[in-house]
Amino acid sequence: MEFESLFKRYRKMVEEGIGRFLPPDDTYPPVIHQAMNYSLKAGGKRLRPVLMLAAGEWSGIAPEKLLPAAVGVECLHTYSLIHDDLPAMDNDDFRRGKPTNHKVFGEAIAILAGDALLTKAFELTAKTLEQGIPAERVVRVIQELAVASGSEGLIAGQVVDLSSSEAKKDPEVLLYIHLNKTARLIRYSLIAGGILAGATEEEIKALDDYGRHLGLAFQIVDDLLDVVGDFQKIGKPVGSDEKNQKLTYVSLFGIEETKKRAEEEINAAKNVLKPYGEKSSFFIKLAEFILKRES
Amino acid sequence: MEFESLFKRYRKMVEEGIGRFLPPDDTYPPVIHQAMNYSLKAGGKRLRPVLMLAAGEWSGIAPEKLLPAAVGVECLHTYSLIHDDLPAMDNDDFRRGKPTNHKVFGEAIAILAGDALLTKAFELTAKTLEQGIPAERVVRVIQELAVASGSEGLIAGQVVDLSSSEAKKDPEVLLYIHLNKTARLIRYSLIAGGILAGATEEEIKALDDYGRHLGLAFQIVDDLLDVVGDFQKIGKPVGSDEKNQKLTYVSLFGIEETKKRAEEEINAAKNVLKPYGEKSSFFIKLAEFILKRES
Repeated sequence: MEFESLFKRYRKMVEEGIGRFLPPDDTYPPVIHQAMNYSLKAGGKRLRPVLMLAAGEWSGIAPEKLLPAAVGVECLHTYSLIHDDLPAMDNDDFRRGKPTNHKVFGEAIAILAGDALLTKAFELTAKTLEQGIPAERVVRVIQELAVASGSEGLIAGQVVDLSSSEAKKDPEVLLYIHLNKTARLIRYSLIAGGILAGATEEEIKALDDYGRHLGLAFQIVDDLLDVVGDFQKIGKPVGSDEKNQKLTYVSLFGIEETKKRAEEEINAAKNVLKPYGEKSSFFIKLAEFILKRES
Repeated sequence: MEFESLFKRYRKMVEEGIGRFLPPDDTYPPVIHQAMNYSLKAGGKRLRPVLMLAAGEWSGIAPEKLLPAAVGVECLHTYSLIHDDLPAMDNDDFRRGKPTNHKVFGEAIAILAGDALLTKAFELTAKTLEQGIPAERVVRVIQELAVASGSEGLIAGQVVDLSSSEAKKDPEVLLYIHLNKTARLIRYSLIAGGILAGATEEEIKALDDYGRHLGLAFQIVDDLLDVVGDFQKIGKPVGSDEKNQKLTYVSLFGIEETKKRAEEEINAAKNVLKPYGEKSSFFIKLAEFILKRES
């Protein structure tokens, strides 16, 4: 199947899974479920769950079997966006072209909707047991998810990001933020697909390495888009990093060097999975797509 | 062993486990680990983890084996307190006699410390696999934890509590809040001990019923203490429910009727576990202790 149709197929599965595994808006108490669904259904590429389904298929399992865990990682990603956007954090008004969660539902419900999506992520990951996945693999994936998203992973990245500033031009700090805020959950999505599918440790390591390079490239491109992007396409104001004096690749290295670094990471990502031959073609094409993305 | 020494023994295990399973303050980035440990080590009765260890022993397993999950439920409880105290929620300045998390670390770190403790709860629960607990039981307990603390459990209780007010004197709403905000996690603690220990479904049901009555009694007594308690003992200002126009048992039924209801729930709790004989004596004594507690 062509890259684009395969991506669409995975993405369609994810959209359908979101509708199936999340409580509908009118579930009591309705306001919390409206708030959860509002952000979860606000669109987005569904990159992380697509990566998980693709990693599962790459490792030899039908992607349908991983769908609860794939929807779970999208819940986790969405929680992190809702909380990052809060007034006490980045204080953002727009996300994916729509008002942020707290702008619509108020701060209290936005905090709780984030909490509920984080909790749902673990519930849905555990639900893969019902798909016939061996329980040992499910527990391992739950541990990987908790570590990747915890106080030494995703949350650590946000903590360091909050206290970073453009004034302190420290490339090591920038790498730490990118590895934890962005690459960590992308790596998790890939290795979770492998682990749940019963991949070998060598294959899981390859998926992890690919994810690290892909995740870094993704964030570098994100920094670029914040400077040269289009509001209509990225769904949030351009230049917000500069306004917030955020430490970014562009602020450290300039546009040209940043583009070069993104390319290097993408090439490194491709080289990790090329040895596995034809079955890696989706991941090779995906890496090229990430480099060229406009949103 | 006497009730009090047994409670102390369980509690000591929990304190030791908190020190062992949580990253120390200087773990990078230090501010988030300081914030997590600040609230986790602020004291408290450790009721939920003690219940889990006791339910495990009641079901025939050494409590040490459940310790990661027991520390996990204390992490989850602590997250819920940190987020409930936030300015956007109950806006409380004191908890357990100390300034609340956001008063010390600021709102952003308090939100993230709550997120991190919620995440840690699942990591530690999954860690019971390393204690030789069968993986199927671990996955089931993780699902129970997610459901009990999710958007139709603990979080639902908080959502309804936020929108409730003393003005609308609705006993059904009050019961919903108490069942979800308080009883739900107490029930979880008990059944998790049973499930991880391999108890029969009948025993798990009994632990659940006991937890429902105990949890309701606990919250009813909490409402009473907010009116007749002592700041030195309860560690937060007396009368805050009335100040915040919270719907409570006392505001609905008055002090005498509230005391009577607490006694009824305690008796119901005791009657559930009495048929199991001598091994239930800790739970019987605990129920009596909850009724007489002053903090």
